[in-house]
Amino acid sequence: MGSRNRKRILIENIQPLVDSGEYPLKRESGDFVPVSADIFRDGHQKICAWVEFKPAGKKQWQKIKMNCVNPGLDLWESGFRVGNPGIYEYRIAAYCEDFGSWLFDTGKKVAANVDFSSDVLEGIALLKNYLSWLSENERTFVRNLLKKLEKSGGDMQRWQLISSPTLSQMLEDNPDPASRVESRGLQVRVERVRARFAAWYECFPRSCGFEHGVSGTFKDVIKRLPEIAGMGFDVLYFPPIHPVGFSKRKGPNNSLTCSPGDPGCPYSIGSHVGGHDQIEPSLGNFEDFAELVKACERHGLEIALDFAINCSPDHPYLKEHPDWFSKRPDGTIKFAENPPKKYEDIYPINFESADYKSIWKEMLRIFLFWAKKGVRIFRVDNPHTKPFDFWKWIIEEVQKKYPDVIFLAEAFTRPKVMKALAKLGFTQSYSYFTWRNGKQELTDYFSELTTPPESDFYRANLFTNTPDIFPTFLHNGGTAAYKIRVILAATLSTVYGIFQGFELCEGIPVPGKEEYLNSDKYEIRTRDWNAPGNIKYLITRLNQLRREMPALQEYDNLKFYRAENDKILFYGKSMGDQHLLFVVSLDPHLVQNSFVYVPIESMGIGSEQEYQVHDLLTDRRYLWRGARNYVELNPKFEPAHIFLVRK
Amino acid sequence: MGSRNRKRILIENIQPLVDSGEYPLKRESGDFVPVSADIFRDGHQKICAWVEFKPAGKKQWQKIKMNCVNPGLDLWESGFRVGNPGIYEYRIAAYCEDFGSWLFDTGKKVAANVDFSSDVLEGIALLKNYLSWLSENERTFVRNLLKKLEKSGGDMQRWQLISSPTLSQMLEDNPDPASRVESRGLQVRVERVRARFAAWYECFPRSCGFEHGVSGTFKDVIKRLPEIAGMGFDVLYFPPIHPVGFSKRKGPNNSLTCSPGDPGCPYSIGSHVGGHDQIEPSLGNFEDFAELVKACERHGLEIALDFAINCSPDHPYLKEHPDWFSKRPDGTIKFAENPPKKYEDIYPINFESADYKSIWKEMLRIFLFWAKKGVRIFRVDNPHTKPFDFWKWIIEEVQKKYPDVIFLAEAFTRPKVMKALAKLGFTQSYSYFTWRNGKQELTDYFSELTTPPESDFYRANLFTNTPDIFPTFLHNGGTAAYKIRVILAATLSTVYGIFQGFELCEGIPVPGKEEYLNSDKYEIRTRDWNAPGNIKYLITRLNQLRREMPALQEYDNLKFYRAENDKILFYGKSMGDQHLLFVVSLDPHLVQNSFVYVPIESMGIGSEQEYQVHDLLTDRRYLWRGARNYVELNPKFEPAHIFLVRK
Repeated sequence: MGSRNRKRILIENIQPLVDSGEYPLKRESGDFVPVSADIFRDGHQKICAWVEFKPAGKKQWQKIKMNCVNPGLDLWESGFRVGNPGIYEYRIAAYCEDFGSWLFDTGKKVAANVDFSSDVLEGIALLKNYLSWLSENERTFVRNLLKKLEKSGGDMQRWQLISSPTLSQMLEDNPDPASRVESRGLQVRVERVRARFAAWYECFPRSCGFEHGVSGTFKDVIKRLPEIAGMGFDVLYFPPIHPVGFSKRKGPNNSLTCSPGDPGCPYSIGSHVGGHDQIEPSLGNFEDFAELVKACERHGLEIALDFAINCSPDHPYLKEHPDWFSKRPDGTIKFAENPPKKYEDIYPINFESADYKSIWKEMLRIFLFWAKKGVRIFRVDNPHTKPFDFWKWIIEEVQKKYPDVIFLAEAFTRPKVMKALAKLGFTQSYSYFTWRNGKQELTDYFSELTTPPESDFYRANLFTNTPDIFPTFLHNGGTAAYKIRVILAATLSTVYGIFQGFELCEGIPVPGKEEYLNSDKYEIRTRDWNAPGNIKYLITRLNQLRREMPALQEYDNLKFYRAENDKILFYGKSMGDQHLLFVVSLDPHLVQNSFVYVPIESMGIGSEQEYQVHDLLTDRRYLWRGARNYVELNPKFEPAHIFLVRK
Repeated sequence: MGSRNRKRILIENIQPLVDSGEYPLKRESGDFVPVSADIFRDGHQKICAWVEFKPAGKKQWQKIKMNCVNPGLDLWESGFRVGNPGIYEYRIAAYCEDFGSWLFDTGKKVAANVDFSSDVLEGIALLKNYLSWLSENERTFVRNLLKKLEKSGGDMQRWQLISSPTLSQMLEDNPDPASRVESRGLQVRVERVRARFAAWYECFPRSCGFEHGVSGTFKDVIKRLPEIAGMGFDVLYFPPIHPVGFSKRKGPNNSLTCSPGDPGCPYSIGSHVGGHDQIEPSLGNFEDFAELVKACERHGLEIALDFAINCSPDHPYLKEHPDWFSKRPDGTIKFAENPPKKYEDIYPINFESADYKSIWKEMLRIFLFWAKKGVRIFRVDNPHTKPFDFWKWIIEEVQKKYPDVIFLAEAFTRPKVMKALAKLGFTQSYSYFTWRNGKQELTDYFSELTTPPESDFYRANLFTNTPDIFPTFLHNGGTAAYKIRVILAATLSTVYGIFQGFELCEGIPVPGKEEYLNSDKYEIRTRDWNAPGNIKYLITRLNQLRREMPALQEYDNLKFYRAENDKILFYGKSMGDQHLLFVVSLDPHLVQNSFVYVPIESMGIGSEQEYQVHDLLTDRRYLWRGARNYVELNPKFEPAHIFLVRK
């Protein structure tokens, strides 16, 4: 039965939580973490509660008092602000407030003018109890008061002494430790703001060259930086930059045969030159890479590297660690298969190998290797085909050394698997955005993504396209289709990205597929980065608005509003007094118009009041009145309005 | 890093759960406990899962295989049936299904007519792995098959041998134990069906006498049994039957002074005769009580006793255990107070006493004492003013010895506190029913009560009235008001009760209060149990219908339907093909009519189809067509229809 006579409080229904507290919440530096709970005891005596929190590894807990905001529902609230990236631990602690209860009850007697002499004596006895756990200074204060109480005459004089706000506040802050009840331990994973807010530009360094058929280099990338940074991107993401294998090298368009001079696919990693801790020689060397990292910094850009656990048949691991791979009965190493398809150019690492611990450690070494070279963002290829437990471990280990490392999970698979990866530690995740084009599906999906519980652990990084995905929507929609998709990506989420060439509205699909013909994955390409018909002005403007407007920097402030036309998506993002409204046509072909319903109430606008909506894309201003207003969007000009509401 | 290479599965989102599994689900003997969860691994290999369950204390787990009912959402389902009352433990265990994955992949190769000779060898190697964990019989089977495989010639012949359904089924049922992943341990609290389904009749034994001013006795109660059982009640509940204190004894209508011969309030427990393990002498002795218990059994009735931790100033505890009570500074024992009010006749036990363990043990002794006397139902008075932890412990301890004991929590307080008591072990709970009279509030409250999560832990026992509560609705509504309330109580929940006299539609309120004038709590009363104007016929019919109709015996099958008139509540309960519809007027004064919308689709009735609704109260039958039909209720006759739908 233990010592249970003082434990009378229950702490329930803590909010917000991810999977009942199984996984940390996600927040960014500077965020306030709200904490609410149902806290109550039997009977009617008073209780008090604190949120206690600290960065993991620190010893000292900080305390924030909770307030009962709804006594009928026993709902208590508080919260705390987080600082530097890392795991924060927190919990709720609640106590019985004996002196406060006595004070409250005796106060009622005093007010009712009934005898309370015995009660004052009880209060003095209670006060003496507190001496056993108060700090030295506080004890001195109480001892002095007790002396005064002894000397003082009447009940009323004593009552006035003992009911002093200074004393009651001190005792309220120092309740009986024996009555302490603690919630389970909870965690917040704090990451830097770029985890939530960033614009990504993906490009193959070898596609940044200027001479047809000659591989671009890191030095060429440096030449492109002013342009990329000029468009307002924050992250420059490269597919693998490691040595490309030679055996079974793929030719253009994923062909099984390759000609001399074909550069191969960068995802077929490893050659005689080295593996994941080496650089493909045609791109440059470590010196060039260091120079690039520095140049990026100067342009306010940050490099993101691909982390793909793919081994070409030439990867050093095959010789150094044959036991990391599955063997066929004839003793040869098993290549990848999706029966009856075979992938002879990829040897998957067997995470169920008896020697798996050395695999985990080597993967950790690779992450730390590149982190040391200045890389703090990794886009992880196909994490859903490796053990969950491995990712949980390695993300923890990397962030222990480099708390500012960001991991983007490139898992296009079933929703529960994608969410699990986000819960166990991936900073950001790819999403189904690429395949959501209709009004209802966009509304449903982004309502889910940006609302708890999902917004507490899943940050969707919206890519308009990738080397592997050339969405059908872009095939025949002309420039307007590209504009629509990049406007949606840049405003529905706070993190989004484009893959090089999107800004040129380029792309020829493999017939019947969502793939690029002559993809950069299999050949060296050059482009005119200022080709006519590009939408760089629009991307630049979007990124500029994102940086200027705090409302565009919050992930979970997205709200969908009503537009009568099913081809027009109407939504908003607000932050304090800043109200942005987005009217996006989902039709790249025809003029669409609609009445839209502005949430004027939430903006403090009266139903008959006039207000201005200022289109930040075209700089046009319109006078609107009331909730219902008319819009018309012509895909030949801009397929969207981004309105700032001005009262 | 442990041995984590084979642990690839996640088990999430188990349903149903009470507070994430913190507290047991509640079910009754014979129930099926559904269990669903999201279960998945990385990659594409097959997995399998079982629900494992057992009565607590037993060693052997039973296993029920789970099925993946939605592969896209990784949703798995199964469940198990529970038997005798007690705690059942259960959990989910999931495994990697290596052989099944190999079989699936190789089957595709065989179908595609590509070479699979190496694969068959891999399959044989896999098969050999299984030998290390299969049982002896299964090993023999596999060894024989391996011999045949060695001898057989072509790949196809081997494939046919190794892909035999017998083998694959056996291996599917015996996956690699190293890959096992377990959910947290969960519990179901199984109680007997009477925990869910019972009609309670509350009466003071002393009010069962036949001579004015003379206390009724247990023997008198026996004389009333045919009538009470005849009305169809299952439980006969007595307020405290223990010796009533003399000091500070209350007079009629809770007056502070009492006259000689006043019987006092039974909640003021304890006198020189004894305390909680004694019987008030004016009611009879233990022999009489035993006779009453037997007589009840013969009538299909069961006794419920009150458990009120109230001590009169004369209770033996005050002398035997003065340390169980709080003392005032002058050394006297503290009586109860709700400042500035004083309750000099009640001495509350101090659960924070240093000697609290002996208090807990003594309370347990009292429960076990009465359980041994044949009492298996306790109605606990004001549990919300004693520690939660105490109740959790004592209910567990009592049910360890007597798993069939039912505890009803009489807590009228804030919702979180009432729910907490239900979660931590109380079988049933009082509710706010008494104060819910409007259509919207009844709909809201009973939708909440009868739907998970609440229906998984809270069984609301609906009392139409109690010795303490004479609801306003009954004050001026005449007979119709009583009819309305008992029909609602008997059909909205599966457990309900009335307090004696309700069947006579009697009662005079203390002016302006929901209290009875001349309450049985403070005086001896006699009644004509067949007084004119009684509604015993209706109560009898309701209880008869409840026993005949399985749809009325399920707690969580309540559904509200639309009635156009706000004064008419329309709801239904179905069980298999049995569909009951309830149309209840909430107006005891005026005729009310309405169109109501029958959920014909869920009953398999076409929109133009005719069907009969048979009023089980009046035996009238009506022909209805389609969803929208007309009803009219006259409070002078019956204020409700209870329709059985006949197709």
